[in-house]
Amino acid sequence: MFESAEVGHRIDKNNFRQQEARLRNELLLAQSALGKLGKFPVVLLISGVDGAGKGETIAQLYEWLDPRFLSTLAFAEPSDEERERPVMWRYWRALPPKGRIGIFSGSWYSAPIAERIARKLPRSGLDNRLDEINRFETMLVNEGALVLKFWFHLSKVGQKRRLERLEKDPRTAWRVTKLSWARMKTYDELQEVAGHVLRVTNTAAAPWIIVDGTDDNYRNLRVGRALLDALKARLAAGVQQSPLAVAAPLAARIDERNVLSALDLGQRLGEKKYARELAKWQGRLSELSRHKKFAGRSLVLAFEGMDAAGKGSAIRRITAALDPRQFQIVPVAAPTDEERAQPYLWRFWRHMPRQGRISIFDRSWYGRVLVERIEGFCAEADWLRAYAEINDFEHELIEAGSIVLKFWLQIDKAEQLRRFREREKIEHKRFKITEEDWRNRKKWKAYQQAAVDMIDRTSTGKAPWIVVEANDKSFARVKILKAICQQLERVLA
Amino acid sequence: MFESAEVGHRIDKNNFRQQEARLRNELLLAQSALGKLGKFPVVLLISGVDGAGKGETIAQLYEWLDPRFLSTLAFAEPSDEERERPVMWRYWRALPPKGRIGIFSGSWYSAPIAERIARKLPRSGLDNRLDEINRFETMLVNEGALVLKFWFHLSKVGQKRRLERLEKDPRTAWRVTKLSWARMKTYDELQEVAGHVLRVTNTAAAPWIIVDGTDDNYRNLRVGRALLDALKARLAAGVQQSPLAVAAPLAARIDERNVLSALDLGQRLGEKKYARELAKWQGRLSELSRHKKFAGRSLVLAFEGMDAAGKGSAIRRITAALDPRQFQIVPVAAPTDEERAQPYLWRFWRHMPRQGRISIFDRSWYGRVLVERIEGFCAEADWLRAYAEINDFEHELIEAGSIVLKFWLQIDKAEQLRRFREREKIEHKRFKITEEDWRNRKKWKAYQQAAVDMIDRTSTGKAPWIVVEANDKSFARVKILKAICQQLERVLA
Repeated sequence: MFESAEVGHRIDKNNFRQQEARLRNELLLAQSALGKLGKFPVVLLISGVDGAGKGETIAQLYEWLDPRFLSTLAFAEPSDEERERPVMWRYWRALPPKGRIGIFSGSWYSAPIAERIARKLPRSGLDNRLDEINRFETMLVNEGALVLKFWFHLSKVGQKRRLERLEKDPRTAWRVTKLSWARMKTYDELQEVAGHVLRVTNTAAAPWIIVDGTDDNYRNLRVGRALLDALKARLAAGVQQSPLAVAAPLAARIDERNVLSALDLGQRLGEKKYARELAKWQGRLSELSRHKKFAGRSLVLAFEGMDAAGKGSAIRRITAALDPRQFQIVPVAAPTDEERAQPYLWRFWRHMPRQGRISIFDRSWYGRVLVERIEGFCAEADWLRAYAEINDFEHELIEAGSIVLKFWLQIDKAEQLRRFREREKIEHKRFKITEEDWRNRKKWKAYQQAAVDMIDRTSTGKAPWIVVEANDKSFARVKILKAICQQLERVLA
Repeated sequence: MFESAEVGHRIDKNNFRQQEARLRNELLLAQSALGKLGKFPVVLLISGVDGAGKGETIAQLYEWLDPRFLSTLAFAEPSDEERERPVMWRYWRALPPKGRIGIFSGSWYSAPIAERIARKLPRSGLDNRLDEINRFETMLVNEGALVLKFWFHLSKVGQKRRLERLEKDPRTAWRVTKLSWARMKTYDELQEVAGHVLRVTNTAAAPWIIVDGTDDNYRNLRVGRALLDALKARLAAGVQQSPLAVAAPLAARIDERNVLSALDLGQRLGEKKYARELAKWQGRLSELSRHKKFAGRSLVLAFEGMDAAGKGSAIRRITAALDPRQFQIVPVAAPTDEERAQPYLWRFWRHMPRQGRISIFDRSWYGRVLVERIEGFCAEADWLRAYAEINDFEHELIEAGSIVLKFWLQIDKAEQLRRFREREKIEHKRFKITEEDWRNRKKWKAYQQAAVDMIDRTSTGKAPWIVVEANDKSFARVKILKAICQQLERVLA
């Protein structure tokens, strides 16, 4: 969930000033149009890790926008007035009217998350609260509200560094309290609970936008730009349209840096080291697949990546370590007629492994948000809702005891070309390279963007995406084997 | 929830034969069009009380439809194949392909309901399962499926009588087993659990259709007609439209009998008896409002009914028993500007009582599914989704400790006319009768239908509708006071 917020975005002062001038101007125009139209409110939630700059960004929004038509609501402990009424009463009271922007600092997410971390709320109790929140937000969207939810993230190291930096500067030292340091201690727990909360409430109607909180300039621009884009899109769409029929679009990017572009594809493994590591992890996997506890679980692996990224050969290095009666490889191509007559996920449900078994998918249910999105094989609303459906799908697998891992094999464009040329030279590999591969190659950038969105929206604590630097096949294969073994060890321990 | 299924529908043999001939013909045509189009499947769930005729209706559908394109799936204990996979796997396996009708007997609702009654599942666990089911059904609808969910209901007496009747007839005696009688014992529990399940899963995308199971002819026609109407509507709408954007329409009626038409409006209370009963229940209410436990609860009363049904005077008989510092009366008319700039329910949230207090609404949040529906003040999709939103709203109130009661005051058209004329005669009441009242009177039938739909869809175990025979004001007032006292006694006990 948070991978994309840890790639280290930075916007320098000059770049910021330039972007800011334009953004501010456009924001004011959009806000004024919103007020004149007076047909829908904007509900903007700012949540996230302590010290990730929530207050600073809100201050920035006040600078950029016309504060007369802006209201901010921070929710601390409920008053006695509020305690004696249903939980959501205080938020209903505070909703911005049509034509206005209401900024909610903390909001309806704070209490459930804090109570869960403090173990005052059982997991099922948390889920009930989240369900209530989902229904509330759906109602808001149905009523026409534009709901934008931001989660400010910091890596553990990043949070520590940020607190230290704030403390050093006499102008900001006051912002760091003992509580700030105390909260560092519950960092891992917050990540786990927040990961779950964000997954469950990442609905088509009101998806989360996760923002790297490290750099002030980047964070502020990201929020301002997302607000502007969403406002402009809604104003352009008119208010006649049922807002729920249009799934929320993905937020635009501020820079070119993302989970894929930030990878170091130069990583390699020497021949000798490869042989040694391969043997080591294959042996480990073989043992783990015969582990007593694995008899009651199952393993689901999904492989995605550009053509010639090395999915097939990586899969063979896995199956080499397994009992052939135990696994099946499911190559995913165009759906059959029978499959086309069923809901999208039906064809994958068919191949879910029994206990003690392994299903390896060479391409997977992510086709909908990759090839189908890019080639237009399904409507935009369909692939946009697929993120949530896929999360639900994997959640059900995990609840039933499956272990789920997803691999994205990343190569660069030059490496792909090299591999295409190589395949054309070798007789028995020539069939592997088709016209379609060359066509797909032309859409490289679109596929990369789709992959980034996919990882953003579907990497969850229990079903993570593992992004693999795959320019060097040896490095990639070992990284994959190791990741599978480590996840199995964690779960079977 | 089940009121409308207890008014006692009966269709005699001749009437049935007549309706059946036409229905069968149309059903076959629609089924054939469905198959030829091949664009969406029909998922038909048949659930309900034991002995309410699930098997008989399925047999009837097989007679009416072309069985080659029909599949029925009854789910008993899961097989070992199924047990080793996620809960929903067995249902995914069984989904009908596009162009076909799949009848699910029992379905994904059976296990959660049975486990909850047997106390193998905690309440929060049940809610999680229902949440999963809602997401699954939303996905089905999003994928184009037409989902129809029927719940066959029998009153407690009705179930007993039906079993006895089946047992007496040698041709049907075999259908009654020891288990059937054993299940009678858990009747009340089933009603409570089923009421909750139906409320939570009564979504805009896939609402429940509750059917009185007593009379075979009525039940079969009701299901056949609902299937036909839904099929025709979907075939006419084309498949381009996002099915979720169009909330499911209300099911058509087979006869004129409903919760309102079945009332005995002749019920009256003599003057003496009225005085005695009024004093008794007002005294009781006064005591209950000062009950120690009421200090931690609150009371929300909603009054609806045609013009001149006696809402105001009934409310005065309640407040006469209360401490004026304790209650507020909220008359609901057209929304103010400020209220219009907020989501629909905002204006009612404002007036929710603190602990120990009482809010009495003279007309209420049900305006959306009554006057707004009939006058076209909001779009069809808006009032259709309002049923679920209102249920959620009342659910939140109850979770926070409120006691919620809703009263529909029913008078007949002649009685309304008499009261209008009377008001015109009396100086200080003349202001109460306006042009609008006469206009509304012309839409009598539409209002009655809207009220029946409203009671059907929003009467829940914890926030019931109490339908009051109000031709005689004395009778109505006492019935209302008594209902409030009895509910308070139940809850505060």
